[in-house]
Formats: sequence, C-alpha cells, structure tokens
Amino acid sequence: MARPVTRATVTSLGIIAGGGDLPRAIAESVRESGRPICVVALLGSADPWVEAYPHVWASMGEVNKINSFLRGESCSEVLLAGNVARPKWSELKFDTRGAMRLPGTVAAALKGDDALLRHVVSFFETDGFRVVGAAEAAPGMVAREGTFGRHQPSPQDSADIARAFAIVRRLGELDVGQAAAVCSGLTLAVEAAEGTDAMVARIAALPEHVRGTPAKRRGVLVKAPKPIQDRKTDLPVIGVQTLRNIAAAGLAGVAVEAGGALIVDRKAVIAAADELGLFVIGSAPAP
Amino acid sequence: MARPVTRATVTSLGIIAGGGDLPRAIAESVRESGRPICVVALLGSADPWVEAYPHVWASMGEVNKINSFLRGESCSEVLLAGNVARPKWSELKFDTRGAMRLPGTVAAALKGDDALLRHVVSFFETDGFRVVGAAEAAPGMVAREGTFGRHQPSPQDSADIARAFAIVRRLGELDVGQAAAVCSGLTLAVEAAEGTDAMVARIAALPEHVRGTPAKRRGVLVKAPKPIQDRKTDLPVIGVQTLRNIAAAGLAGVAVEAGGALIVDRKAVIAAADELGLFVIGSAPAP
Repeated sequence: MARPVTRATVTSLGIIAGGGDLPRAIAESVRESGRPICVVALLGSADPWVEAYPHVWASMGEVNKINSFLRGESCSEVLLAGNVARPKWSELKFDTRGAMRLPGTVAAALKGDDALLRHVVSFFETDGFRVVGAAEAAPGMVAREGTFGRHQPSPQDSADIARAFAIVRRLGELDVGQAAAVCSGLTLAVEAAEGTDAMVARIAALPEHVRGTPAKRRGVLVKAPKPIQDRKTDLPVIGVQTLRNIAAAGLAGVAVEAGGALIVDRKAVIAAADELGLFVIGSAPAP
Repeated sequence: MARPVTRATVTSLGIIAGGGDLPRAIAESVRESGRPICVVALLGSADPWVEAYPHVWASMGEVNKINSFLRGESCSEVLLAGNVARPKWSELKFDTRGAMRLPGTVAAALKGDDALLRHVVSFFETDGFRVVGAAEAAPGMVAREGTFGRHQPSPQDSADIARAFAIVRRLGELDVGQAAAVCSGLTLAVEAAEGTDAMVARIAALPEHVRGTPAKRRGVLVKAPKPIQDRKTDLPVIGVQTLRNIAAAGLAGVAVEAGGALIVDRKAVIAAADELGLFVIGSAPAP
C-alpha cells in the first residue's frame, strides 16, 4: 500500500496579480509571514516585481495554463489583487476551457465590476481552489480603527466623513463606486468608472471657494467597500500615492472603513501623512 | 374711505435670473403667453439678454434693493432660475437686511445646494412673495412622456436608462447630484459638484471599450430631480448644448423624468437630436 504523499502543513498561496502596488505589497506581507507564494501575472496588467517569485504570465482566459501552473506549485488557495483593465473581449487570449466560460463572463461583466469579480472567483472555486481575501492572507494590511500618524480630523472633517460614508454606502449598494469626497457638507465628487485617482484629481478643477487648497486644506476623501461585494476581492485600498493625490487636491485627509480597507506600506503611509499634514483614519463600520 | 388700489388680474412675474439659457427661455415662454415680466439680474451670473426686459442688476445679498424693484414693478410672484455660482461670502454685496440674513444663509449653504435654494426661496416667501416654479410659469417647457425626435432607445439603452434612474434617485436623496451615465450596465459617471457638462465631458477619457464613441454610440445620460428638492427651483434642464456634449462623449441619448425636467428651446432640441442621431426621451417617474 502506497503511503500518502507528504503535504506541507502550509500550502503555497497563489496570487492572481493585476497591476499596481497592492499585489506586490500582499506578496511581501505573506512572504514575511513565512508562507510560500507563487504568482499568476496577468498579461497587460501585472508589473515586473512578479519576476522575483515563482510565476507564470497568462491571460485571464487561459484557464488550463493557470490551473496547471498553480497545481504544479502545490497551491490550493488563490488570492485576486490589483488593477485589471476591463477585458476587451476581442483581444483576450483564451484556451479551450477559457473559451467555454466566455459567454457567462461577458454576461457577468455587463452587470458591473462586482458581478464580474464574483464570477471570476466562482471559476477558481469550481476548479477546486479556495479563494481567500487579502484581509485573511495579509491581516497586517487591514486598516484598524483610529488615526494613523499624528494629524486628527477637525469637527467639520468628522461631519464630512459621516456624510461621505453615507454616500459611499448608498452608491455601493448599486455597484457604482467605493469613494466620495465631501467638503463642508458639499459633495465635491463621487467615484464611478473613472477610479479614485481620477476622481480626486478633478476636485482641483472645482471653484476654489467650495473646496480646500494645498495652502488651506479642507474636505475629506472616504473609501469603503460596497455592501454587496465579496470581500475576497476588490477591498478599497490607500497608499502613499493616494495621500499625495489628496494633498494636491486640497483635501484635509482620508477616512476608510476599519476592517474594510487595505493600507499598502503602512509605515510609509504614516510618514507621508505626517509630512503632508493629512489625517488618515479608520472609522468603525456603520451599525 | 379710500378705494382699494386697482390690481391687474395678471400680475408681473419677477424672474431672479442666474446665468445660462434657462432664465432667458423661461422669460421668452412667459412673455409669449402674454404675461408681463421683470428681471432681477444677479451680478456676476446673469447674461445680457436681461436688458431687453424691465430689470435691475443686484447681488443676492441686496435684499432691500431687490424687494423695492419687484414692488415697483407690481410683482407679487417670483421665479428663481439659472446657474448661480456658490457665493464667495467675502465678496458678496449686502444691504442691511441682507446682512442680517447672512448667518442663516451660510448655515444653509453648508448643508448642500438644495438646502441653500430652499433657504433663498423662504426669504422671498417671508417678504410676501409667492415663489413659483418654471413648471407652473412656463408649462410648455416641461418634458412630457415619450420620445422627442425620431430616434428611439434600443433595448440595451432602456436597461441602462432604468439603472441610471435608480442611481440618480438614490444620489438625489442625499443631495449629491441630478445626473448619471450608464453604458451596458456599467456606471460611467455620476454627478456631484462639477455639474452635468463636466461629468459628460470626462466620459470621453474612459477606456474606449467600456463606452461608446461618436462613431459607435453607446450608453445613456439620465437627469432627474432630487426627491428631496423643492421643485420650484433647480429642476434638471436639457438643451441643445446638452445634446452636443453627449454626442461628443459617445453616448446614444438622454432620458429625463417626464414632468420633472425642463427642455430649453424644444424645437431646436428635436432638430439637434435628429441631426446628431440621438434619442431624447421623457420617462414616467418611478411609482
């Protein structure tokens, strides 16, 4: 009778990596915890840091290729992270298995970003992988409650934070976006398909008396997850660049939902907040 | 015993005019109906067309001046229309009566655009004027149900219209904005302080595969009033420029709430819709 194959008690984590700093930061955080990782680098989206890990470059449509790589790495858990441009179907690479799944994927994509992400997650689950979120795999990156750094929101900032959370949650129920900016009660900007960076950048084009300026900061950015979303994917993220953007837009700080947002490079974020004179706060989720 | 002063059966309508085509179109529509009008032209906002009517140039803070002018014109009903930049309090002109009202006005302005407008309306009412909406004074400008011009929304457009109405109503409950754009289920843009024109303009900056193009139009703009708003003020408006903007952004058409939006220069709007290949539709309000 053959002995069962020996398994490592900690299996490798497969990171399905889109673009940006988030998948890199997750990979570093997981590796620091001692767990092995491997990376599926999405063609056209992932950045060169993936070369430092066991990896394969693949299109989201190359399902057999992705599965073979992950199984070869003894990986049974996967994590999706990073920016992925909405696929242009006519340019996407498919293998046979990916092509069979295409009609359902197109249908899901038409329903919105979250429907698309839930659909991709369901594929991995169908193929026998456990899909984990960044909050589980890299708990040190999750925003905790309270302020980061030495700056605190003013009473007006706190009122604006409460209003912006109400707006983001209402929008999130409709799968519209995860961010809003409010200044002295006025909603400066709301995020849809353009993303948070573009949303923050346009605040500087509003009339100067309704917003803050880099010299006299006013108003807040709030990011919170959509109530409908699968928290295994697409949690809101802030990092040093977020802080640079909001400082340039004249905002006074940023609030995220404690337990419902990721902070990339926490130490660098705290240093940037202190240097730029911004508050960064994790707020308890709505009851 | 003195006889009462004779009153004309149709009193003059006082138009408190901000910028843009809307107050001009209302003035023309009311004059065509045979009713006399006079205009309070808001300094820094109103356009030169006001010179064709009995008028006074005034700041919103010059309450005595405005009241005296309106009473001198035997005007007991007023209508507020047009774009008014949010006041920069330090530059606003006040007379004594206006100055006494300033603290309340600042407080209202901090609560949002609609709170500010309701506050200004309440001033005129306190001073004995009846405030009427454009829908009452110029009923011919109100969008009716059905399509304008010869183009019809496709089934996909109709689905996008329904989704965009749901978003606009949700946002309106929070006094955020009156407009959203949706394309094949994806929310392209949502209006906040930037206004509809800027919102539509940024759609062209999104990746081309998520939106339409002038060569291949996709997606819809929806405008609807905020459920919380006083319909005497600030109904959503569309005109020829709106159509030119959405054509340039690659959208297929625009839907407004029937009975809850104004169309400036209806004949010109229909001609522009037909020429640009856009649909324009008034949709029944949600039950």
